[in-house]
Formats: sequence, C-alpha cells, structure tokens
Amino acid sequence: MATGKINVSVENIFPLIKKFLYSDHEIFLRELISNATDATLKLKHLTTIGEASVEYGNPMIEVRIDKEGKKLHILDQGIGMTEEEVKKYINEVAFSGAEEFLDKYKDTAKDSGIIGHFGLGFYSAFMVADKVEIITKSFKDEPAVHWVCDGSPEFSMEEAERSEHGTEIILHIAEDSTEFLEEGRISELLRKYNKFMPIPIKFGTRTETLPKPEGAKEEDEAPTKEVDNIINNPEPAWTKKPVDLEEGDYKEFYRELYPMQFEEPLFHIHLNVDYPFNLTGILYFPKLTNDLNIQKDRIQLYQNQVFVTDNVEGIVPEFLTMLRGVIDSPDIPLNVSRSYLQADGAVKKISSYITRKVADKLTSLFKDNREDFEKKWNDIKIVIEYGMLSEDKFFEKADKFALYPTVDGEFFTLEELKEKIKPNQTDKDEKLVVLYASDKEAQHSYIKAAKAKGYEVLLLDSPIVPHLVQKLETTNEKLSFARVDADHIDNLIKKEDAQISKLSDEEKEKLKTAMEEVVSDKGYTIQMEAMDSEAAPFVITEPEFMRRMKEMQQTGGGGMFGMGNMPEMYNLVVNTNHPLVSDILNTKTAKKRERLISQSLDLARLSKGLLKGEALTDFINRSYDMIK
Amino acid sequence: MATGKINVSVENIFPLIKKFLYSDHEIFLRELISNATDATLKLKHLTTIGEASVEYGNPMIEVRIDKEGKKLHILDQGIGMTEEEVKKYINEVAFSGAEEFLDKYKDTAKDSGIIGHFGLGFYSAFMVADKVEIITKSFKDEPAVHWVCDGSPEFSMEEAERSEHGTEIILHIAEDSTEFLEEGRISELLRKYNKFMPIPIKFGTRTETLPKPEGAKEEDEAPTKEVDNIINNPEPAWTKKPVDLEEGDYKEFYRELYPMQFEEPLFHIHLNVDYPFNLTGILYFPKLTNDLNIQKDRIQLYQNQVFVTDNVEGIVPEFLTMLRGVIDSPDIPLNVSRSYLQADGAVKKISSYITRKVADKLTSLFKDNREDFEKKWNDIKIVIEYGMLSEDKFFEKADKFALYPTVDGEFFTLEELKEKIKPNQTDKDEKLVVLYASDKEAQHSYIKAAKAKGYEVLLLDSPIVPHLVQKLETTNEKLSFARVDADHIDNLIKKEDAQISKLSDEEKEKLKTAMEEVVSDKGYTIQMEAMDSEAAPFVITEPEFMRRMKEMQQTGGGGMFGMGNMPEMYNLVVNTNHPLVSDILNTKTAKKRERLISQSLDLARLSKGLLKGEALTDFINRSYDMIK
Repeated sequence: MATGKINVSVENIFPLIKKFLYSDHEIFLRELISNATDATLKLKHLTTIGEASVEYGNPMIEVRIDKEGKKLHILDQGIGMTEEEVKKYINEVAFSGAEEFLDKYKDTAKDSGIIGHFGLGFYSAFMVADKVEIITKSFKDEPAVHWVCDGSPEFSMEEAERSEHGTEIILHIAEDSTEFLEEGRISELLRKYNKFMPIPIKFGTRTETLPKPEGAKEEDEAPTKEVDNIINNPEPAWTKKPVDLEEGDYKEFYRELYPMQFEEPLFHIHLNVDYPFNLTGILYFPKLTNDLNIQKDRIQLYQNQVFVTDNVEGIVPEFLTMLRGVIDSPDIPLNVSRSYLQADGAVKKISSYITRKVADKLTSLFKDNREDFEKKWNDIKIVIEYGMLSEDKFFEKADKFALYPTVDGEFFTLEELKEKIKPNQTDKDEKLVVLYASDKEAQHSYIKAAKAKGYEVLLLDSPIVPHLVQKLETTNEKLSFARVDADHIDNLIKKEDAQISKLSDEEKEKLKTAMEEVVSDKGYTIQMEAMDSEAAPFVITEPEFMRRMKEMQQTGGGGMFGMGNMPEMYNLVVNTNHPLVSDILNTKTAKKRERLISQSLDLARLSKGLLKGEALTDFINRSYDMIK
Repeated sequence: MATGKINVSVENIFPLIKKFLYSDHEIFLRELISNATDATLKLKHLTTIGEASVEYGNPMIEVRIDKEGKKLHILDQGIGMTEEEVKKYINEVAFSGAEEFLDKYKDTAKDSGIIGHFGLGFYSAFMVADKVEIITKSFKDEPAVHWVCDGSPEFSMEEAERSEHGTEIILHIAEDSTEFLEEGRISELLRKYNKFMPIPIKFGTRTETLPKPEGAKEEDEAPTKEVDNIINNPEPAWTKKPVDLEEGDYKEFYRELYPMQFEEPLFHIHLNVDYPFNLTGILYFPKLTNDLNIQKDRIQLYQNQVFVTDNVEGIVPEFLTMLRGVIDSPDIPLNVSRSYLQADGAVKKISSYITRKVADKLTSLFKDNREDFEKKWNDIKIVIEYGMLSEDKFFEKADKFALYPTVDGEFFTLEELKEKIKPNQTDKDEKLVVLYASDKEAQHSYIKAAKAKGYEVLLLDSPIVPHLVQKLETTNEKLSFARVDADHIDNLIKKEDAQISKLSDEEKEKLKTAMEEVVSDKGYTIQMEAMDSEAAPFVITEPEFMRRMKEMQQTGGGGMFGMGNMPEMYNLVVNTNHPLVSDILNTKTAKKRERLISQSLDLARLSKGLLKGEALTDFINRSYDMIK
C-alpha cells in the first residue's frame, strides 16, 4: 500500500480563489477593511497590556482611489507586519493568523473584538485585482517590507521606506472590475458593509464651512476647510449599554440604519447576552401594514460590527422578520445551508432568546403604559398575531398583552373580554360567543344590529384572523367566535326566550313560496325567522364555518383542501315580524308583490355588499324613478 | 529583492474546501453525479471514435445508501482511472481534468456534453464525509485502484479487485451530515439536480406488477418483479429537435417539470441556438393572474442537463421571469454577482435572443389562429403588457399582436381599434379618444352611458394599465385614453354641437347654491352640465389625470412624488336637462328639497361605489321606509 500527501497545485489556487471564494466579488473590500480593523485592534490590545511600546493614538483606516493609475489603496495604522510575518501570513495561503493570535492571547484578547481569518480574506483581493502590493511596517523595530504579486504564485519582496507602523494594500484593479475605481461604487460598498465598523474609516475629504471671523462683512464668504470624510460610526448604539442610551439615541440610530425611512419606530428592544452565546443588537417595531410579504428582510446581521447579510431567515423566528434593526453575533455559522442553520443548537437558542425578549418587552410595555400600548396596537398586531399562531411559547406569553379591540376603539385582553361579555353573550348552551367584524364599513348594518342588543363587537381585520380565531377556540373551552354577518343576531347568540312569530305557519309557507319564485335563480337559501319588529326586514348572512374555511385556504395553510374555489353560500333571512314583510304577504297583485320583494332583496344585498354591476344600475334607475 | 512562490498550506485546504467551496453542502451529490456522468460520456466518446476497445453498452449510474454502515455509494460504468490518473486527477487538488480532456479531443469532443471540472468537484465530498474511498478500474488494461482519504491531506492507495471498468465513490458520512443517509433526502436531491441528466441514474428498486399468466384465476395475485428504479429522464424534450416533438410531448414535459401543477400551459417556445452562444430550452406560458410578484422564479436553469438554479434574474428579461420552463446553456457565467451578469456581453445577447423568440412566437400565434390567441389573451396579457413597458424592442414588436379587448369581449389591435373608433370618437380637436374601464361591474353605469352614445369601451384591468396607457399616449400622436368615469360622457369626447340647457343661468345658479348647501361638507365639486334628458340626473366623476398619477404611484414608479397619499378628488355632475333636476329646483319646501338632493346624491355615490358604512345603512333604512 502506498501513502502520500495530497498536493495542492499552486498554479490553480488563484483561479480557484477567484471562482469560489465568494460568489460576490464586491466582498473583497469588506475583507480588506476587516483585516485593517483587525490589525488596528490587535495593536490596541497590545498597547493596553503593555506589550507594544508605540502610542496607540487615534488611528484610522483610509480608502483612496487612484483613478488614473487604476489603483485602489487601503491604508491602516495598525500592528503592521515584519518580513517574517509577511512570509508566514501572506505567502502561506489559508493560514489563519487571527486564530493563532487569539490562541496566544486568549485570556486578554477575548473582548478586543478581533474579527476574522487573516490571510485568506486578503486573497479575495485577487478577485478584482491582477496585481497586489503590500507596504507594511511592524510596530516592532524592524524594517518595512514591500511585497508584490501579479496573481501568479510568484511574488517579490524587498525592504521599503515606510517609517510609521501600519499596512498599505495597493490593488491594481483588473480590466473586468473597473467599477471598483468609481467613487460612487466604493462609497456604496463602504456604506453597505462598513457603516458600523469599530475603527474610523476615511474616504476622501469634505468641505466644512467655518464661522465667519469677527467683524466680517455681510458679503464676505465664510471661510471653509477640508476635513476627513469619515464614513462610519465606530460606536453604534447596539455596542453600548442600555443604561447609557436615551430614547433619542435609539431613534437616531434607527435613522442611521434606515436613512430613507421617514416614519419613526414605535419602540425598540435592546438585545444583550453573553452566555451561552454572544449576541447584541437592537430590534425595532416599525408601523406595519397588513401585507405580510413585503416587509421582510429589513433586519441586518453583523459579526463584530461587520455587515454580513440582511437575510436573517432561520436565525430570527419568521414572525419577527418583519421587525427592523441589527443583530450582532459571532456565534452564527455562516456559509451553511438554511436547513443546517435551523438545526444548529446555538442558532435555536438565539432564536428562542429573541422570541422571549420580544415577549418580555411587549409585556412590560403593556404593564407600564397600557394607554400608549393600545395606541400602538394596530401597528404591531400583525407581528403579534402571526407569532401567536406560529410559536407556541409566544402564544402562551401573549395572553398577557394580546389585545382585542372593539369596533368602538375599546381594547380588552382575552380575560377582560370574557369577563365583560359573560353576562350578556353566553348562549343557552353555556357557550361564550365573541362577535367580531372584519370591516367596520362593509359590515355596518350587522354591527349596528349586534350593538342594538347590547353586544360587544370586536374589530379583527388582519388577514390571519380566521386562523387565530380557530386557535383561540381550540385553546379556550366553551368559547366560540362568530362574525356579525354569519347569521341573524338572534341566531348568533341563541337565548332561551324565543321570539313569537306574528305570522302563522301557513302564512310563512305562503310567503316563502312567493319569495322563492322571485329569488330562486339568485342562489339564496330562504330562512324564515321571528325577530324583533325593529330589526331589518331582510338580512343576508354567510355561515361562519364555510366562510372561515375559505378564508383560511386563501391565506394559505389550514382550511380544507379545495375550499378556496367553492362558491360563496348565502342565506336570505326573512324577519317575519317586520311590518314590511306583512305588507308583502298582504299585497294582492303578483306584479306589485314581486316588485316589493325585488326592491327588498336588492336593499339586503346592498347591505352585504352584494349588489353590483347591471343589477346595481337597474336598482339605481328604479330608485330615481321612485323619487320623482 | 527576494522572490518566491506562494505556498498553499495543505493542512488548511480541507477546512477551506469545507467552508468555502459551496455554501450549500447538498451540492456534493450534484458534483459527484456530474463526475460520474462525465466519466461515462468520455467513454462513449472514445468508443465512438474507436479509441477504446470496450463495449459502451447501456451504462448507468447508481446511488446506494448503506444506512447501517453510514455510507453513501456512487457507482458509474464509465472511463475509470488508472493509478497514474488517480495520482494526477485526485491527488492534485484543483487540477481540471475535463479541461485537459477537452483540449486533447477538442474537435471530436465538442458535442459529447462533457460537463465539468473533474477534480475540484470531487473534493466537495469532504463537505459531508469524514472519509472517502475510491475504487476505480480504467477501461485500459490496467489494475484497479483503491484510494482512501480521511480528510487529512494523507491518503493511501493500493491495488483493488474490481474487474469491470468504472468508478465507485464511497462516502463515510460525517456526524453532522447524517441527513444524507436518509432515502427521502437523497431522493429529493436527485429529483432537484439530476432529473434530466444524460445517463440513467438508478436509486433502489421498485416492484412492478406483471400481467397474470394465462388461465390464472380471479383470486390469484398478479406476479411481480423487482426492477431498477431510474430516477431521471436522460433525454428531456429540450435536448430534442422541435421537428421530432408533438404538442403532446411538450405537455408531457411540462408535467415532468412541474408535477404539482395541474393546469396545462397555454403554449410553448422552443429555444435552440448555436451561435454566437449555445442555448437550448423550452419556455411555457402558464395561465397568469394579475399578481406580478408571486409568480416568479419558476424557470429552471441547466448547464448540460445539470440543474443549476431556478433564479434566472439577470439572464431572462424581468418580464419573462413569470414564464415557466427550462433554459440550458453552458455559456452563462455562474458564481458572479448579478450586476456583473447583467453587464456580461454573452448574457445580454442571450436575454435579447429570448425576448425576440418570445415576440416572434406571439406574432405567429396571433397570425396563425387569432381566435385561439384571443381566448388566451387574458391569461397572458400581464407578461405582454409588462414587456411592452420595460423593453422598447418588445414594445415595437408588440404592435403586431398586443390586443385591446372591449367590455363585450371583442378584441382589437391598436391599429384596428383606431380605425374602428375614428368616425365616432374623434373629438373637436381632432384627438382620438379611447374609452376604457378597469372594472366592468363597478363602472357599469358609466359603461352603459358610453355605450348609449355608440362608443367602444375597452376593458383594461391589469395593475400596470395606467403606465401602459401613458406610454401609448406618448408614442401615438393625437391619441388619448380616458376612463369612463373620468368625466360625464359629453365631456370625455367633446363634440362641436353643445347641448342646450333647459335651465336658465339664473336657475342653474339657484340650484347650485341649494345643492352646495346639502353636499358642501362631503367634498364634492359641483359641475352643472346640459346633457341628454335621458342621461343620469347625477353622476360622480374622478378626473383622469389625478387618478392615473395616483395609480401609477401605487404600482410603483412613475407618477408624481407623494401623489399616492393625496385624497381622492370627485366632481358631482348635475344634468340640468333631467326632469328630476327640474323637480328639485321647483320643490317649494327646503326640507323636501334637501331630502330629494340627499337621496339623489346617495344614488350617485352608490353608482360610483362610494356609499359605505353608516351612510349606506341610513340610505337602506330610508329606502325600506319609502317602499312601505
């Protein structure tokens, strides 16, 4: 048996890097600035523990475009490299410098925020450059080094002139990557990946207007000076302690994150945990609409202040992806498939930590200032309702703060609501019936009828309400929900005392037959009911169960298969105690009776929003005639 | 100056591969099966040109799970490797074997469909396995080789027993990847990536029922046999010539592509081009709804029958991403950023080729069977209208086939429409006015009024119609579009002969004042107009320009900034020639007049869909009273 060592053919390593390292070439800038940040933080750490004799000072990183020379420079004032270190960290690919550093200083380096894998990230420069130079001087008393490589595995190395410690990377941008010589493009990348990196990053200069000197005339121009254009905020709010931040700081940070967003967030949640995983961040509840789909992917994921992605699927529970803000954690594995991510233990813990923090925040907001919480309810309910449906733990906690608003703008928790409606809305089978509407305008007449009985009517208008209502029914015994137009009001909450019908059975039969002749082809099932004489003479209703199943189907999931395509089913309830109904019964000529029935049916259809098109035009013309 | 060669530290190559090669680990199976396919096609090629003495036969690839042994086997009957070749292709990472092979046989190998980069793809096995074995026997008369590597760079190699040419790869699946020992998972991956690969792939066996032998009794069970379970179709429709396919073949292939899709496609477009780029494929027009967003990402991209992605953004023009089907092209660069892709010359050509083919197909469908094309129009218009807006070349071509349906279901091209309406719908400024509705039901009374004048009314109900109409107006001189409810009908198309008002100016002023007293707080602008006495007494209109700008804002792009949040503006047109209007003027008591005006206004609001909520309930109750 022969044994050997797999040999990596160096001639092929550069095409490999170019092709596979990152699918998105723009990443090179993030990597190089990460390295520069890393080198600076390392120096900071060494000066702090007294292992470097140089001053740390106020170092910055600079990015400079040389459009004419087709070069991009990245300069730092960090730790620098000696010749030996260049050989070790640059000439050997895939050698993770940061790892070794962390290993050596592991007790003291823990909180210095050292970023990544030095070495490999550097080679991403070859994705956009066909020649790369390094000029570097270590903080140690050793000569500077000038390293050059043209993308073949050959490099050259010689002493250089530089006297201050730090590193300059010079990229000779390749023909197919000239976009990276455009100021606009680089500026966009810096904003995208480096907005919150911990070392100030300079990109060009800007002109600042100074105050006019004393005694200057009106027409004198104010003096100006060129100042460094620092593109990042090295100390973003999430890296600070909550006690050091005011409400205004959180709002300002929101504007930094979403400069194009004019509306202020409703409230924030500051995340901060060390164990068993490391995570910081700030989540914001924005005003949300009922459209579940368009509002995702606004949370940004960072690792040690370096932007990674704005797709937090799998890390944040789905119902919270509608929130905004920042999560920063070095403990989230990247470059793995979503299914792996979701199975990862640390990620699961992070996800449930976030859920818990959100629930706790909502609980305290509710307790501390209920009035304010009620005001915000309509803007946040979609997240909460979706969370109640999708996460059982959140559902349990939501008992404390989930609100049920009435059509009149009163807000109840479920417990309060049950208490309130118990005396009046318990039916003869001891079941508590919660009435709700989905649209105050469209269901106005039905709401009015319910209120006439002294019933409370909730306004539940999110698209997922059918699912939520279903869930509440299965988790609460003897509780049922019914939309106000599901039946006529006496049937929605059945009491012992039945109304007495003014019409005899014979009369009812006669009327029913007459009605059926007129409305048979319109698909309504006629239902004769003895109701209040003050109630509407005719009401069109849509049974709760069928409607709910259909709606559940339409919003996806639940409901019965194929239900979404079934036709709507309506009942026409005839109030046999209404005087108009008696009039119709007593009308002698068939033609006149038919006209009365038609007009009444049209009015009932109008009330339910069912009179449309030609039928509506006919109704309107008929009504104009009746005015005259 | 020192020079040297960059050294790749082999110890670090495996973590590198594991971390960076692909972000999705499942890709390993695609890569290994690609290699197996490659090896088989190479043998086919060599036997064809007489350079291999073995029989090609009917080779297949097999995937086998050994759950107990925690192993996954991939076997092929291809070219195999000699010891020398294993050393060259396996022991040297990043050595592209296929490239060399293609180079050597470049004249004859062009059409043999050799896939990828042998060598590098193989190492993706280490993403999921902590030990990999290869047992391989070359088609040449040399001994078989057994190679083993445990993920460290050390490997062992010895002679093996195998006598038939071909290769077996054995993956010892790692602890964190045991999902790849599940039959369901592997089956899912094979279906996703390998459904149309050119060599049959066997995964397990299945039981097939045979016909009963003659003379078998009713109760005898039919005999069965185990047969190979081939999971792929090695000759999918798009690899064949259009002349060799029937309509039914295309439909069958559609069902193969989208087994969960029950609806048949409307028609297909077979793509087939060799120069200046290589592309084959079949696109299907499915029935589309008006929702632009949910229907994207159904086109699958292949390279030489290997599935790559179903995100064809940047390759296919955006308006065609709503189609379905397959595109197969080796000329599309992968692993590049979308912005690079869109700037790539070859990709641009591919995109405009596809646009042209789609336009040509639509032109011929229109010409060959207009009746059928009209029937399909409503299901495909959203693609065509979107294409007309977004691609100027497509807009020009669409002149030939874009249809404009009327509310009565007649279809016109723009030229035909212009011809048809010229005599009746040219206004006094020589402008041709196209009337349209967006909703037959909601705008019924307005459509009726337009038809009463003998005008054609188009039904344009896509969400992007405001943009389209705007574009048609700017590209056609003296043509304007107006929705039927934008003004009263005599104003929409102004003719020379003005109607004479039955009311004097003084009477009009008096009426206007009376009306304003009643409707002032409802935000309508009153407009007194002398119209037909047969026309409606009151009409609510919504000016075209404002409405269109608002709509354009809502569907994104175009329109004036901030317009989307402006309130609706309505006019109340009073027909001074209608008898009811005279009646109102002549009503003596203020209260009665007010009631008449209120009821009339409510009817006009009903007609425009503006009477809602409490106002509607009040109207209905008032109307019940009036019946009695």
